[in-house]
Amino acid sequence: MPVGYNQLPPLSPVAGIRLSAQAARVRYEDRDDLVVMELAKGSRCAAVFTRNAFCAAPVIVAREHLAQTSPRYLLINSGNANAGTGAPGLEDARHSCGALAQRAGCETAQVLPFSTGVIGERLPVDRIESALDGSLATLSADNWSAAAHAIMTTDTVAKGVSVTLEIGGQTVTVTGICKGSGMIRPDMATMLAYIATDADVEAAASQACLQQAVDQSFNRITVDGDTSTNDACVLVATGASAAPCIDAGHADYPVFCAAVSKVCTRLAQLIVRDGEGATKFVTVRVEAGCDSDECLQVAYTVAHSPLVKTALFASDPNWGRILAAVGRAGLSQLDIDRVELWLDNVCIVRDGGVATGYREVDGQRVMNQDEITIRIVLGRGNACETVWTSDLSHDYVSINADYRS
Amino acid sequence: MPVGYNQLPPLSPVAGIRLSAQAARVRYEDRDDLVVMELAKGSRCAAVFTRNAFCAAPVIVAREHLAQTSPRYLLINSGNANAGTGAPGLEDARHSCGALAQRAGCETAQVLPFSTGVIGERLPVDRIESALDGSLATLSADNWSAAAHAIMTTDTVAKGVSVTLEIGGQTVTVTGICKGSGMIRPDMATMLAYIATDADVEAAASQACLQQAVDQSFNRITVDGDTSTNDACVLVATGASAAPCIDAGHADYPVFCAAVSKVCTRLAQLIVRDGEGATKFVTVRVEAGCDSDECLQVAYTVAHSPLVKTALFASDPNWGRILAAVGRAGLSQLDIDRVELWLDNVCIVRDGGVATGYREVDGQRVMNQDEITIRIVLGRGNACETVWTSDLSHDYVSINADYRS
Repeated sequence: MPVGYNQLPPLSPVAGIRLSAQAARVRYEDRDDLVVMELAKGSRCAAVFTRNAFCAAPVIVAREHLAQTSPRYLLINSGNANAGTGAPGLEDARHSCGALAQRAGCETAQVLPFSTGVIGERLPVDRIESALDGSLATLSADNWSAAAHAIMTTDTVAKGVSVTLEIGGQTVTVTGICKGSGMIRPDMATMLAYIATDADVEAAASQACLQQAVDQSFNRITVDGDTSTNDACVLVATGASAAPCIDAGHADYPVFCAAVSKVCTRLAQLIVRDGEGATKFVTVRVEAGCDSDECLQVAYTVAHSPLVKTALFASDPNWGRILAAVGRAGLSQLDIDRVELWLDNVCIVRDGGVATGYREVDGQRVMNQDEITIRIVLGRGNACETVWTSDLSHDYVSINADYRS
Repeated sequence: MPVGYNQLPPLSPVAGIRLSAQAARVRYEDRDDLVVMELAKGSRCAAVFTRNAFCAAPVIVAREHLAQTSPRYLLINSGNANAGTGAPGLEDARHSCGALAQRAGCETAQVLPFSTGVIGERLPVDRIESALDGSLATLSADNWSAAAHAIMTTDTVAKGVSVTLEIGGQTVTVTGICKGSGMIRPDMATMLAYIATDADVEAAASQACLQQAVDQSFNRITVDGDTSTNDACVLVATGASAAPCIDAGHADYPVFCAAVSKVCTRLAQLIVRDGEGATKFVTVRVEAGCDSDECLQVAYTVAHSPLVKTALFASDPNWGRILAAVGRAGLSQLDIDRVELWLDNVCIVRDGGVATGYREVDGQRVMNQDEITIRIVLGRGNACETVWTSDLSHDYVSINADYRS
């Protein structure tokens, strides 16, 4: 059960986008696992992909296709990542795109492929191909929820959010869905996210907006420190609303960027809330660092520490483990006597030791909560950074020890 | 139950060293938790301490004392780390040393303090002080085994080893004991190690020998990526044998260094074998890298990956997780088509995908073993490095979620 999130809220359709979800039996027997998303002609598509050196076949092919032309279809399967599959995997990804393109009457390069699931097994292209007629026949603007469910792997709940904003006095919608709960970390993990808007956004402005939003959201979450070979985040602007086209200089561009950021942050936090085995949603905020890099260095060292994460699981205010993680983060000349450690509004450490007046019962009260903020004040500058993480539980081990069986 | 290690072997006494183990009730009720080690006059003492910025009070005091004079006593307690205790913790460490010095008739600075256990609680100096008369009365050359037991915390087995070698035609002994099973990682973790020899070794040569041995042993092991505030490794050379004094230029110095390295490597591997919840002993060997740094970078990324570690726990030859870890290790311009991945003598990945002829049954056979070598061949240079690690099991979570309760 995710922390502080029960179920997918209603998602608003986005003019210019139609979707379908089909059961292609890529891996699972009784559920949808294949999504086709159709983008209206003239849609602009921005994308950010994994930085893992071993990127999967669909990532390579999607990048190639994006460089050639404007996409008309996204073809997404769960159950199989088509990663670590070498040259045959590339061929499988291209073949799947071709099969959809042929049926939809577009070029192969106008289809972007995405896969998530088990690594190292060949994609069952025949089964995907067999489902494509059904996919095209069932395209509908109202299938966002079905799509959010179909892209799930170890997720325990479908993830999505819709917001609206005004551009030039016209209301536009931003709707996003994503999947991911393990292999989560800065470089975007086993994470797929699809965000669409009926706003009309110039291509470079759209890409810049997405990059910035991803940096502050999907690149600030960590469940287990691992990164996936398949991560992708796509922002489609269909331009199907009556709102005027905006570029980076437009007065309403910041409002648009804020809306996309809000959607990305919400989706990213949902991934952490549904972190594999998560029982806590933890915000790690590092303040008063010399620069952003060292704040992130400390934040990730704390957020990745198995000892901190098991203490969180045990609701144990074991600040010694947090302090030890700060101490090994590799900051040069860190003066431990200036570091403060807070759990929510409870100051636990100050002047190199337990804070005066700190009572274990106060730390325990915060630790008993589902949502906790660990605040580390370095006392050496003005930079600050925030990352989000979860705890390390028995269920995390079970989920990841049993995933392939 | 440690992997491939059942019990402490017989340990050889070292001329010039007497030890005792007492029950001081620092934390535990029914076991020894206080060790006093007496070094013969004229002994030379080399030491390596944690690089964690938050080093514990005893580490600070031991460094101070070492800088002033030659130690005559080591005072070691388990159950309480005296870390995160600020100025009062320093006072406690100094007071304990003073109490022993007074009873033993030496200077306070001739006592080095060491503590391991829970962080953030005051050291019960009164109980330690009460046990000191008993400690001094029971000093014996034959108490190595008792000392190895008394320094344990979450260790499930006492750890030690003895070797002999010849210097100038005379047989000398090197005996070492250590404790540590969690918070294990390059910077030496919650690790205490005491190595003694009756060889006569010049001070700078002894320090260089220890530093080199620690770098290739205790700094090459990782259980959970965490580092402790209390790590220390001490090498005492009593000079009580008939062997001649050696310095770094002596013909037998390399033989001596090899013996110390052998002891350190054995002790370090025992810590991994007894890693918290460990069911596998895993050697991660990275070959054909451009330099040592990048080999270590890859090795630690793989060894720290919770996904790799849970796959090891599940005996799952899930090479996709290993490959994904290699891919996110941050090597610039890594050519994935040149990377090979081996489990023992089974080649699993080659040319960017599954190796021709690889059968899951072969990978499974290796994964079912208790001891596994993951070999990653980067195909870009001549450097290689080895680290040792364990898997991530349910018991790891239990041990660390329950440690304080």
